[in-house]
Amino acid sequence: MINITGTYTDLYQLTMAHVYFQTKREGRAVFDYYFRSNPFDGGYTIFAGLENILEIIENLRFTSEDIAHLEQYGFDASFLDYLREFKFKGNIYSVQEGDIVFPNRPILQVEGNIIEVQIIETLLLNILNFQTLIATKASRIRYSAKNETLLDMGLRRAHATGGYFASRAAVIGGFDSTSNVKAAEDFNIPSSGTMAHSYIQSYRDELEAFRDFARIRPKNCVLLVDTYNTLKIGIPNAITVAKEMESRGEQLLGIRLDSGDLSYLAKKARKMLDSEQLVYVKIVVSNQLDEFVIKSLKEQGAPIDIYGVGTNLVTGKPDAALDGVYKLSEYNGEPRIKISENIIKISLPSRKQVYRMIDQNGMFYGADAIALYSEGKVWEMWHLFDPTKKLNLDSFEHQPLLKTIMTDGKRKSPVRTVSEIADYSKKQLALLPEEYKRFQNPHIYKIGLSPNLKNERDRLINEHRS
Amino acid sequence: MINITGTYTDLYQLTMAHVYFQTKREGRAVFDYYFRSNPFDGGYTIFAGLENILEIIENLRFTSEDIAHLEQYGFDASFLDYLREFKFKGNIYSVQEGDIVFPNRPILQVEGNIIEVQIIETLLLNILNFQTLIATKASRIRYSAKNETLLDMGLRRAHATGGYFASRAAVIGGFDSTSNVKAAEDFNIPSSGTMAHSYIQSYRDELEAFRDFARIRPKNCVLLVDTYNTLKIGIPNAITVAKEMESRGEQLLGIRLDSGDLSYLAKKARKMLDSEQLVYVKIVVSNQLDEFVIKSLKEQGAPIDIYGVGTNLVTGKPDAALDGVYKLSEYNGEPRIKISENIIKISLPSRKQVYRMIDQNGMFYGADAIALYSEGKVWEMWHLFDPTKKLNLDSFEHQPLLKTIMTDGKRKSPVRTVSEIADYSKKQLALLPEEYKRFQNPHIYKIGLSPNLKNERDRLINEHRS
Repeated sequence: MINITGTYTDLYQLTMAHVYFQTKREGRAVFDYYFRSNPFDGGYTIFAGLENILEIIENLRFTSEDIAHLEQYGFDASFLDYLREFKFKGNIYSVQEGDIVFPNRPILQVEGNIIEVQIIETLLLNILNFQTLIATKASRIRYSAKNETLLDMGLRRAHATGGYFASRAAVIGGFDSTSNVKAAEDFNIPSSGTMAHSYIQSYRDELEAFRDFARIRPKNCVLLVDTYNTLKIGIPNAITVAKEMESRGEQLLGIRLDSGDLSYLAKKARKMLDSEQLVYVKIVVSNQLDEFVIKSLKEQGAPIDIYGVGTNLVTGKPDAALDGVYKLSEYNGEPRIKISENIIKISLPSRKQVYRMIDQNGMFYGADAIALYSEGKVWEMWHLFDPTKKLNLDSFEHQPLLKTIMTDGKRKSPVRTVSEIADYSKKQLALLPEEYKRFQNPHIYKIGLSPNLKNERDRLINEHRS
Repeated sequence: MINITGTYTDLYQLTMAHVYFQTKREGRAVFDYYFRSNPFDGGYTIFAGLENILEIIENLRFTSEDIAHLEQYGFDASFLDYLREFKFKGNIYSVQEGDIVFPNRPILQVEGNIIEVQIIETLLLNILNFQTLIATKASRIRYSAKNETLLDMGLRRAHATGGYFASRAAVIGGFDSTSNVKAAEDFNIPSSGTMAHSYIQSYRDELEAFRDFARIRPKNCVLLVDTYNTLKIGIPNAITVAKEMESRGEQLLGIRLDSGDLSYLAKKARKMLDSEQLVYVKIVVSNQLDEFVIKSLKEQGAPIDIYGVGTNLVTGKPDAALDGVYKLSEYNGEPRIKISENIIKISLPSRKQVYRMIDQNGMFYGADAIALYSEGKVWEMWHLFDPTKKLNLDSFEHQPLLKTIMTDGKRKSPVRTVSEIADYSKKQLALLPEEYKRFQNPHIYKIGLSPNLKNERDRLINEHRS
């Protein structure tokens, strides 16, 4: 239904491209992708969406329908011919998908002729901003849920087909499975789900509904127990069915609570199940969960094994969007910055490298240094905005983060599956100290500039201001 | 990239369907689509997404890739064969797309065998919930902007491909155009856009950048004036170019402000332009706009002609999701309700009709009455939850709202374009009194039950509780 082709962009990318084309100003440009603040007032961000971007960009073309549509916007025939033959031939340098990233330093850089680099801007922001938002939300929910199972069930409240990408990003951020079958199919991620209230309502009797389900689908059977009365009807019926399953050599996987006070009901349910020797039957809960509700349920000692999370996960509530931007940092070999009254909004010039400082224990020290690409390692870094602060980097291992992942429009890095990315991200997150993970006023990760980059930026600011 | 096929659903729809199939419980079911509260604490909601749903459902199939994927979930071969041949053959009754709707009464009903009706649930909620949210947000922004031009420019911050549907819904809610070329192409809606900061930065000189743009794209030319210094550089350069265009018999369409105090800058800009006899040059603004910012700009008398709205529109901020649900109301000819401790969450049984009360002036009186489908017009209605309140409906014209739009899987209603839907919605909204449109504590539109429906619901509640 939705074909991501050349016209998956903002019109102004094409009008600018038209001017570049007609004036033959097809110089080499470098753009930086970065964001300005961690979502959810958190202390870190999980970068996601890169594999999709690489696949889409490698195959991006303008179809004949696209070209026919574009005829109404006053483009020259020669420019339309150019678009007809369009193929991205630039380079992409990026951190890895699943990496832990921070505000105000490049996560990805795109280099190529300014036309092609401009045309892919909207697509790149659209896919990366959203998946990075959701992977980060998922990571926070994972932090609260500790080792319990997490299921994404948000498709019905997702932003239309955005839900497809949300389910993928949720797994990268630490979810175990999704209710979204299409995402499971295309991204090879686990899917789970059993029954809704409507299934039970379609029967005259809840017990009969449970029995049919357990008989037809004995594996991974989870019975929804709150349709009529959780404690008086639902759980007793589930116990009856669990016993019947035992007599057939089967085991009921779990019961699901979807309303009421989940802590109170989970404790009651656990007792009722345990007193019938059904200690193996898991308790699944759902209903407007997020990282804070799950944290509270844990603190109350609610004996919950599986959390189903929907709306708050897939919409990235309450943040709605990551503020990722794409800024020109070099044109035709000359450094470029975007000036602003506010120094925090001034972009950084030139192609760059980012070095992560690793301490003696192999953990993230809590500082990334941004340097000019050409200068190699840096031994001290300056605060991004405060000219009185600098940090000595002598004692750390310097880990370069931006790698070449696409050259001349062809991907260089091997294709990674969602589960590989999720595993990688989990390992990276384990290297980030706890202080950056807490929800309340997390520790602020330091981002600094190499002396050369700082001098270059300050020189350009002065040049513009004079 | 994303194919909306049979697996665009939650896994539990398929596991339930599997049980229905194996137990031969393929009875006729009726489901109601409705939501529980107007988004944004508003007084009304614009229903959107229906045309997409009809097109998708009419063509919904399980592909061979879908079937291959489904083999891992323990389905019987005969059920997979059923899915291979699946085609929706049910009926859909609905209000029209663009209609003004309210909480707690059916907007759409689906009737068919319970398997097919269940399989389309997730898809239907996914597309309708989101577009209805965004059309409503757009309508509120339109309310603030009065007759000025509104441009959607949110694709980069939208929830991945959800942005495609957001741009469509924005036009239904009252926007004039979108930056999203793909949405413009597929939904035949106007697209607009000119230049970003990067275009200007790629030049050494802003004036040269403006000149090239005006020369190559003189029609609908809007110059972005805040890259370096809005008042000292940007607007003077735009004036120079506007004069040069005049000498060629052309007209500059506008200038765009994207940062700073938009009210202050728009007033200054207007004066500077007018003093050069450039009264026809429009002022375009963008930067984190929403219905409240635009209302405030209007109140300050800011002379703005075009508003570009992004993130807050396409993400439906701050609401994130419409709480639309899909509840079983009839199975095999028997009424069904979903019980809850909270009477507000109890669903309504049976196939129904909704009558809108129209006053002597042809305006909406402010009441919709829900009745059993079979009973025809109703002369009084009871409050949904408060058994002491009822309203006499004698003096109103009764307008039935649910129409048959799909029969046996084939659409009955003619295909409507987005612009037809937008025109229709605008006319309907004009019939809603102002009290329902204000942002602060809007008047509450009355929803009531016919005596027969109330009796039926109360009988079923008592039956379940005893």
